Amino acid sequence: MRIVCLDLEGVLIPEVWIGVAERTGIDALRLTTRDEPDYDKLMTRRLEILREQGLGLPMIQEVIDGLDPLAGASDFVGWLRERYQLVILSDTFYEFAEPFMRKLGWPTLLCHRLEIGADGSVDGYLLRQPDPKRAAVKSFHALRYEVIAAGDSYNDTAMLSEADAGILFRPPDNVIREFPQFPVATEFRDLQREIEAAAQRLDDATA
Amino acid sequence: MRIVCLDLEGVLIPEVWIGVAERTGIDALRLTTRDEPDYDKLMTRRLEILREQGLGLPMIQEVIDGLDPLAGASDFVGWLRERYQLVILSDTFYEFAEPFMRKLGWPTLLCHRLEIGADGSVDGYLLRQPDPKRAAVKSFHALRYEVIAAGDSYNDTAMLSEADAGILFRPPDNVIREFPQFPVATEFRDLQREIEAAAQRLDDATA
Repeated sequence: MRIVCLDLEGVLIPEVWIGVAERTGIDALRLTTRDEPDYDKLMTRRLEILREQGLGLPMIQEVIDGLDPLAGASDFVGWLRERYQLVILSDTFYEFAEPFMRKLGWPTLLCHRLEIGADGSVDGYLLRQPDPKRAAVKSFHALRYEVIAAGDSYNDTAMLSEADAGILFRPPDNVIREFPQFPVATEFRDLQREIEAAAQRLDDATA
Repeated sequence: MRIVCLDLEGVLIPEVWIGVAERTGIDALRLTTRDEPDYDKLMTRRLEILREQGLGLPMIQEVIDGLDPLAGASDFVGWLRERYQLVILSDTFYEFAEPFMRKLGWPTLLCHRLEIGADGSVDGYLLRQPDPKRAAVKSFHALRYEVIAAGDSYNDTAMLSEADAGILFRPPDNVIREFPQFPVATEFRDLQREIEAAAQRLDDATA
């Protein structure tokens, strides 16, 4: 019995902060962990910028609502749900993911949460737990599921390592170099093929 | 951050074995745990009957495909997924649940599995783990989720007790009497109200 765990941003939907930066024209929101490796400092800066620009949650959600899942993502999710149990493991926030989840048919999503003021202001953020993607895979193992996981970036590699099979989807070159043990898929049809191949290997191993 | 855990049969869909008994006219398949409390003996007998009657999985799935989710269940699932993460915890088998899951938009389902022969015969069954509903709620707690759970019968009470809030939906009288600690809902609108009330109590407790 199997669960497929997917990262969200970069796999099914575009990078949310980049999308918001583009849509609003606020270039400062393009900051990523490459510019500021300390995630808490990065988020604190992002929330400061939102405050300075007077951007509350309703306006951000309106911007996000104008963004679409990546081309082919909805069909891929449909294909997946007919064959496996799907749980999305993401470091985004429910409030940002919601418009995308609606478009993807509300798959189960485990992520984090924002603190929203009575006036809609984004006052802070709550990370659910440390190393959340790895913890989720461990939990599914405790429930006797085999896990096939796919993600695009550094913060997915703990999930990919913990899973019974890990696949990189459209990763940057440095991640490919550093994690040569994971197969790489660049199109959804490749990702489907890698998932099926992983499932076949797991079948063979238990036969 | 919250997950709602729902039982499947009797909450969102009819009792599958009863439905198959009615559709096929095979009364012996109406046996339940009330007639045979030993689950393994009950399942062994059911599989024997299927074999005797020459009923393989394709034919059973065809029968199940003619059954519908309970009236109002699809709308309720839609309502739920916009507000909470939904995971269905069931003691049914993926092979039987599939036609219903398609009609309900493929919510995440944790249940058990049948062993199917090359000719489609139902050769056995695999229970994922002991006390699976309680184990799932514990796992979600380990992932720092609060859990609101709803189910209709005896085998749901471990899940309801382990959850932060438990609700009985259309339970038999003996379950109501034995578990007076759980509120009872008989229509989906009552269940919605009880879920919202539970969420409010949890909010108040953490405020």
